[in-house]
Amino acid sequence: MLVNDKLYKTVWVEDTTVFMIQQNLLPFTFQIHKCPTYWDTCMAITDMTIRGAGAIGAAAGYAMAQAFMQFNVKETKVNIREARQDIESTRPTARNLYYAVDRVYKAGLISAENAMAEAKKIAIQDAEDSKKIGEFGNALIKRKANILTHCNAGWLAFVDYGTALSPIYLAKKQGKDIFVYVDETRPRNQGAKLTAWELFNNDVPHVIIPDNAAASLMAQGKIDMVIVGADRIAANGDTANKIGTLGRAILANEFNIPFYVAAPTSTIDTNCATGKSIPIEERSQDEVLFQSGVDANNNNVQILVCSPGSTALNLAFDVTPAKCITGMITEQGIVKAHHNSIKKLMG
Amino acid sequence: MLVNDKLYKTVWVEDTTVFMIQQNLLPFTFQIHKCPTYWDTCMAITDMTIRGAGAIGAAAGYAMAQAFMQFNVKETKVNIREARQDIESTRPTARNLYYAVDRVYKAGLISAENAMAEAKKIAIQDAEDSKKIGEFGNALIKRKANILTHCNAGWLAFVDYGTALSPIYLAKKQGKDIFVYVDETRPRNQGAKLTAWELFNNDVPHVIIPDNAAASLMAQGKIDMVIVGADRIAANGDTANKIGTLGRAILANEFNIPFYVAAPTSTIDTNCATGKSIPIEERSQDEVLFQSGVDANNNNVQILVCSPGSTALNLAFDVTPAKCITGMITEQGIVKAHHNSIKKLMG
Repeated sequence: MLVNDKLYKTVWVEDTTVFMIQQNLLPFTFQIHKCPTYWDTCMAITDMTIRGAGAIGAAAGYAMAQAFMQFNVKETKVNIREARQDIESTRPTARNLYYAVDRVYKAGLISAENAMAEAKKIAIQDAEDSKKIGEFGNALIKRKANILTHCNAGWLAFVDYGTALSPIYLAKKQGKDIFVYVDETRPRNQGAKLTAWELFNNDVPHVIIPDNAAASLMAQGKIDMVIVGADRIAANGDTANKIGTLGRAILANEFNIPFYVAAPTSTIDTNCATGKSIPIEERSQDEVLFQSGVDANNNNVQILVCSPGSTALNLAFDVTPAKCITGMITEQGIVKAHHNSIKKLMG
Repeated sequence: MLVNDKLYKTVWVEDTTVFMIQQNLLPFTFQIHKCPTYWDTCMAITDMTIRGAGAIGAAAGYAMAQAFMQFNVKETKVNIREARQDIESTRPTARNLYYAVDRVYKAGLISAENAMAEAKKIAIQDAEDSKKIGEFGNALIKRKANILTHCNAGWLAFVDYGTALSPIYLAKKQGKDIFVYVDETRPRNQGAKLTAWELFNNDVPHVIIPDNAAASLMAQGKIDMVIVGADRIAANGDTANKIGTLGRAILANEFNIPFYVAAPTSTIDTNCATGKSIPIEERSQDEVLFQSGVDANNNNVQILVCSPGSTALNLAFDVTPAKCITGMITEQGIVKAHHNSIKKLMG
């Protein structure tokens, strides 16, 4: 997608060096981060220079391929098994990461070049799946539509296109008259910081709203559809996503507004029968108590925005029941959030 | 109510000097602001040293009385009619302000002392009404209860006790096992900044939550009731309050959680037949784009927390339909949010 009118992917490889958009500096500074060794790529995953399920998976695949490449060079020789462990321990809860590392590891047993080819395939596949989600999702978007989205399920979270935002990019490209309401998505503000940045750079008309404003806009008839991403989808269609998603789904239902979840089928976890088995991460209260941004001199600053002496509760995700979801937009098509449809989809 | 274990009102008078809690420094600095003349009191209302419907009304009444007092002293002589205009133009949309100024002006036609006595009566009445709201509301609170509140409808917005928080203070005083979930209430964070500060100082167990978390907590059965304040109530019970209130009401209904509006009857505007006639103020986008707080050195800082280049929409209020409201807690008792009940209440 576009950044300053130039096409980028979130992560790519040139020769044996991995390049990535330095996401922890966004939206205030746009910079490309260079990882010459697998170890640099590990560091970049750990410190969240790169984040988002698909982007992490691709980066981890590249890191594994880099390790095989380094193995062939005397000066940088590494132990492949140790390298694999290093990569896998960067972000222990990221499922895409294990999947990618495993594929590239197996390919590397033939040759380092084969490992690198496999890593590239994974990245290409990720972008292609996102593109397909865009095509299926775009079919749901009318010629004129006001769309609400929550958090960031854009191209920054994948290699390209994204999930919830992918249909929006395609609709815009096709000249549809679309407008996006961007939930700021407290506490980490991924909507205001990342989604808005993506949409601005790709010339999609949008406005940032406080999370509190969604109900009022829906009541006023200003929202035609809601599209969000997903962190994990249970076998029955219950969907875990960023905190606040459940509230948007209930409101959308109340006002008869279609509510779609856009995600690759790899997000579906058939080990979870329902949403009840999806664990909800509780994160540091500091993410609520403090806010980070830039001051008038563009210096990064963190400030306390709550009453000192009080504590905060920071639930990272919530679970939206399948019954509240109009449909799931996957790379294989649009399916009902229902265990029969999901079973069929997963073969 | 208590601040650092000492009893305060938000605004009071000693001789002819008006004193008030400097609310625009809260929650980071607690300071008392002194207004020796009516003009100082006007300035304090204008620059939001004092805010909140009831508190503004009381301050304006005192300012009018100060003007009459000044009239009797050669050195500070003022034109009473001009003074009245000055006071009325401090916050042109505050209804309580006009009401208080009018009452004190009429009383002042007899004597300056009479004006001051009337201003004191208004402030006492405001606190008494809040206290009664606390008594009626407390009857709704079970011996053990988790209560959600939105924005700040506490004693800082009135002379004492508040509205939504008044029943909570009384429940706590009576030894009930209560816990308050405080919506941070973006964009201005009045929940995180003022409500949390009030509850902390009055030893009420509470936690700040991002506005996005309410739905998840309700789904988990962690909220027993919701109490909010009101900015304006239409003749049919439709209620305008801080943006986000409508969303909480719909969620509470979805999860069968009682949703109460606590407000003095002076908040009811019988000129508005329904919520449709209540105008919704759109405020500066800067309140969304920027956040204010304190840095590590306790200096006040404002930072950009959104992607530069994007705009934001800042609707200050929303309207909750009467049908979503379980009951209205007023100083005259608990009534249904229904035009018959309201008509009866307003005599």
